[in-house]
Amino acid sequence: MQTFSSKIRVSYSDTDQMGFVHHSNYLKYYETGRWNLFRQLGMPYKRIEQEGFLLPVVDVQIQYLKPAFYDEVLTIETSLIQFKGVKLAVGFKLFNEDHELINTATIILAFISKHSRKPCKPPTALVKLYKEHLQTDLQIV
Amino acid sequence: MQTFSSKIRVSYSDTDQMGFVHHSNYLKYYETGRWNLFRQLGMPYKRIEQEGFLLPVVDVQIQYLKPAFYDEVLTIETSLIQFKGVKLAVGFKLFNEDHELINTATIILAFISKHSRKPCKPPTALVKLYKEHLQTDLQIV
Amino acid sequence: MQTFSSKIRVSYSDTDQMGFVHHSNYLKYYETGRWNLFRQLGMPYKRIEQEGFLLPVVDVQIQYLKPAFYDEVLTIETSLIQFKGVKLAVGFKLFNEDHELINTATIILAFISKHSRKPCKPPTALVKLYKEHLQTDLQIV
Amino acid sequence: MQTFSSKIRVSYSDTDQMGFVHHSNYLKYYETGRWNLFRQLGMPYKRIEQEGFLLPVVDVQIQYLKPAFYDEVLTIETSLIQFKGVKLAVGFKLFNEDHELINTATIILAFISKHSRKPCKPPTALVKLYKEHLQTDLQIV
Repeated sequence: MQTFSSKIRVSYSDTDQMGFVHHSNYLKYYETGRWNLFRQLGMPYKRIEQEGFLLPVVDVQIQYLKPAFYDEVLTIETSLIQFKGVKLAVGFKLFNEDHELINTATIILAFISKHSRKPCKPPTALVKLYKEHLQTDLQIV
Repeated sequence: MQTFSSKIRVSYSDTDQMGFVHHSNYLKYYETGRWNLFRQLGMPYKRIEQEGFLLPVVDVQIQYLKPAFYDEVLTIETSLIQFKGVKLAVGFKLFNEDHELINTATIILAFISKHSRKPCKPPTALVKLYKEHLQTDLQIV
Repeated sequence: MQTFSSKIRVSYSDTDQMGFVHHSNYLKYYETGRWNLFRQLGMPYKRIEQEGFLLPVVDVQIQYLKPAFYDEVLTIETSLIQFKGVKLAVGFKLFNEDHELINTATIILAFISKHSRKPCKPPTALVKLYKEHLQTDLQIV
Repeated sequence: MQTFSSKIRVSYSDTDQMGFVHHSNYLKYYETGRWNLFRQLGMPYKRIEQEGFLLPVVDVQIQYLKPAFYDEVLTIETSLIQFKGVKLAVGFKLFNEDHELINTATIILAFISKHSRKPCKPPTALVKLYKEHLQTDLQIV
């Protein structure tokens, strides 16, 4: 399984009065990570919406191992784990500037039709693109 | 000019590492204040959107006088200042639990059509409702 | 196990362009839910910090069953599942105005010392308070 | 007056159900813009805090000219307008990918001591740095 790496810098507004990044913001970082990956693969999430799909989150598992701090440049490693029916599972690892693993997550998204708001198969072009570009052990079940 | 009073409690996620409420969150508090006022008047903002209007913010002026802190219950005083053409000006005062004025703002919103995304006159029912309910010096220019 | 119920209203800023509440905001709702419960029990989280403790989140599991929408009044059911060593597990169920279960979560928090930033036992008064007030099957392991 | 240019990409979580960037998020973009400028000048805001200062916002004026959309790469032009006593005024212009001016702002910040939480003169090194690096019409009053 290939992983895609991207970086984000922690904003001041991401911190809370503990002096840590507030735990809700990791979901925003991971969202940035996966859309960076989609863009890299030639299928920006914006285009997926333009083609009539939405891809909401349906399941989240996060482990907070160490805190993140203001102004740190964090590295997000994003891996496509599995396409299965209408669902896409994505794995994330987050590293700080000292290369310490500070957070891990698995997030499952589901394709729905923008118009019917019902679950639907992912765009064929997208699945094809992933298979070609990744040449990985990505499972299309 | 009548003012409408509502309360919000500061969330932990609203704070930043200074230990204060992050300055961007006051805009969320004032948004809550004005939609509370609209709801009170019998015209929830939700219905305004359902009837085909949007009411984006076009101008903001905020003075930060004192910080706000986690868990404080803040009082938002909201006043409709003026309807003028497609625009609505709203004034805000924010008080802490010691009744100290900690923040003031004037926010201007503009009615636009949900479909054309162009400026448009506010819903007649809304203007009428305000005039009746407020019986104030609200200016409809 | 007793559950504690509290309500929040979905803010406009909580929505995203799908028209749903953005998935990161559920963590804010659940934070509100558990601090409402702590306040109800006579030990506001604010006091816990004042007494030298912090209670960061270390593990999150969320299932998104149905979307939430702007202006809905959601009911958060919060249950203390387990105190174990330095950790506290809390369960959440979120219901919409039609009494539909739209989201569930289990969140684990860990007590750390505000000064050393190291894990530490929870305040004795807090554990005692929970046992007295809840008279539940809350497990103190 | 020199301006400093930096870029940000609009996150999905920055949008609201109008399909626009929520108006509160511009304050986050401008915060990123000014700390990018400070970092460029060799005085990251992080170091300012480490040296015992805080720099909260005390006044905001924003004009929203056109909306911003998901995934756009926006250009923030940041200008230091004036140091005056304990205050720093910063000007901002925000451009979309079509080089249209979509938002302008003036934000005033005030130096306070991290310990006393009282207003204080800015760090001498910071003022010196700006004068040297900018060689501009920056006013130190």
